[in-house]
Amino acid sequence: MALDRNSISDWLKNLQDKTCSALEQADGSAKFEEDNWVRPEGGGGRTRIIRNGNVIEKGGVLFSAVHGDAPDFLFKEQGHSGSAPSPLGKVGMGSQFFATGVSIVIHPKSPMVPIIHMNIRYFEMTGGIKWLGGGIDLTPHYVNENDANFFHKELKKVCDRHHKNYYAKFKKWADDYFYITHRKETRGIGGIFFDKLNEDEQMNFEQNFNFWKEIGETFAPTYVELISRNKNKPVTEQNKQWQLLRRGRYVEFNLVYDKGTKFGLETNGRVESILMSLPTNAGWEYDFTPEKNSEEEKTLNFLKKGIEWA
Amino acid sequence: MALDRNSISDWLKNLQDKTCSALEQADGSAKFEEDNWVRPEGGGGRTRIIRNGNVIEKGGVLFSAVHGDAPDFLFKEQGHSGSAPSPLGKVGMGSQFFATGVSIVIHPKSPMVPIIHMNIRYFEMTGGIKWLGGGIDLTPHYVNENDANFFHKELKKVCDRHHKNYYAKFKKWADDYFYITHRKETRGIGGIFFDKLNEDEQMNFEQNFNFWKEIGETFAPTYVELISRNKNKPVTEQNKQWQLLRRGRYVEFNLVYDKGTKFGLETNGRVESILMSLPTNAGWEYDFTPEKNSEEEKTLNFLKKGIEWA
Repeated sequence: MALDRNSISDWLKNLQDKTCSALEQADGSAKFEEDNWVRPEGGGGRTRIIRNGNVIEKGGVLFSAVHGDAPDFLFKEQGHSGSAPSPLGKVGMGSQFFATGVSIVIHPKSPMVPIIHMNIRYFEMTGGIKWLGGGIDLTPHYVNENDANFFHKELKKVCDRHHKNYYAKFKKWADDYFYITHRKETRGIGGIFFDKLNEDEQMNFEQNFNFWKEIGETFAPTYVELISRNKNKPVTEQNKQWQLLRRGRYVEFNLVYDKGTKFGLETNGRVESILMSLPTNAGWEYDFTPEKNSEEEKTLNFLKKGIEWA
Repeated sequence: MALDRNSISDWLKNLQDKTCSALEQADGSAKFEEDNWVRPEGGGGRTRIIRNGNVIEKGGVLFSAVHGDAPDFLFKEQGHSGSAPSPLGKVGMGSQFFATGVSIVIHPKSPMVPIIHMNIRYFEMTGGIKWLGGGIDLTPHYVNENDANFFHKELKKVCDRHHKNYYAKFKKWADDYFYITHRKETRGIGGIFFDKLNEDEQMNFEQNFNFWKEIGETFAPTYVELISRNKNKPVTEQNKQWQLLRRGRYVEFNLVYDKGTKFGLETNGRVESILMSLPTNAGWEYDFTPEKNSEEEKTLNFLKKGIEWA
């Protein structure tokens, strides 16, 4: 396929379609509702939400493609202000940007099924800048070691097909990114995270694009497998209480640290699309400590950086 | 009383005691539990939490008094970095700070009883700097106009006894501070907020201190009155669902905007004390819109800046 912005966003829309179908089939009951929205400054999106299913309590699969004047913070993120001379020479005030992506968050009903998040994005800016970014990470309410191994191995397989260093590099990046600093806990068991991919000594843009596409395509079969492994496990009242506390941590991460959420809220994005990542409900209990040797304590001990799951 | 740091923190501890007694009496069932904690870099606190009461589902009345090397952000907040020459001449690297205060957040069980927050604080820094700050604001799940009038009138009475401009000035400050920008909603019906009070043309420090003390003392009788007016009102399932959504907004404000929360999390404060402000549970529903002419819609229409309640 041609690697221009239109073909890339068409590919993403198609990924959104296929992913929604796979999730509906895995759920067996609920269907996605669609909201189309327009961004006054340029572009828009297709927000798809699924609710109150057999398996999925609340989830979103969002496509967007937006463009316009590059906002100030884009320059700041590169370490120089819009008014200062750009080290890249061609970038400065009056630059135009284009960004398209698919973002997914699924909150399952059962505490035995993990929460999952995936995002892949493509970014262009005046001056020939183009980048690929993305990430996929898993947040089990209860960490199951077999599932964690499976999840990371699936991601490693995709990475290894394209670049021998990508899994190690992007796995560490995810550990560092999906970290709740004030809790000294990772959000879940991590996954991979990458940004500003274009080319390096071994991979040209097209090769990175092929890697990026496969990450998007690996989401549905991987998560559907995790659903089918866990959806029928029995659930106690204590499991449900613990799920609320883990969801509380998810809310803390998304509202305090997540760059996509902050970016969206600060740039007057569509709030309902941005905050679809929050669960139907979440809880906080003062100074909660799990019982010694409980499943809850075991899970907390797995919420650390640097665990080799693959 | 002498206005030194020790007598001020003793006065605050006594306020904590009196406030906890009044809240226990109003609740009629639950008692506060106390956690004492020490800050490695200097000082500590006395966290008191009440849970699962007749009226109060979760609440905290926190005292702290901390001191030590003034962290960098204190200089930034004043508009200059620690290494740059200070416009105040005496402030710079190596400065010492002292801060003491009482913070309260109460989440009631019934959606008919409002959430309340109060904070009063005293701050000192090398170079003779000393400030008083504080705020008190009300977050009804359902806005009751009589209650809102009563609450603001009580605050205005205290303000008016000390300075003719304080209510108008501090009421506007609260409207601006307790604002959820991304929702274009105020957190609740506001109240008053002030910071860096020392002296102005009409009030010396001692006069401001007397105002500040009265704000602290007005909390308990005002909230106890609001409890007794509302605690026995009937509650429907719809009321409870709405309460969860309003609590969700409270979580959004505290994690995204509240300076005290951000300050605490960024400076490695005691997380359980900082996040006691979060409710036992909270909810988010995608793109929720209340029914036309419902009580929920009426409440949303009151969540605006600039309403004259007093």
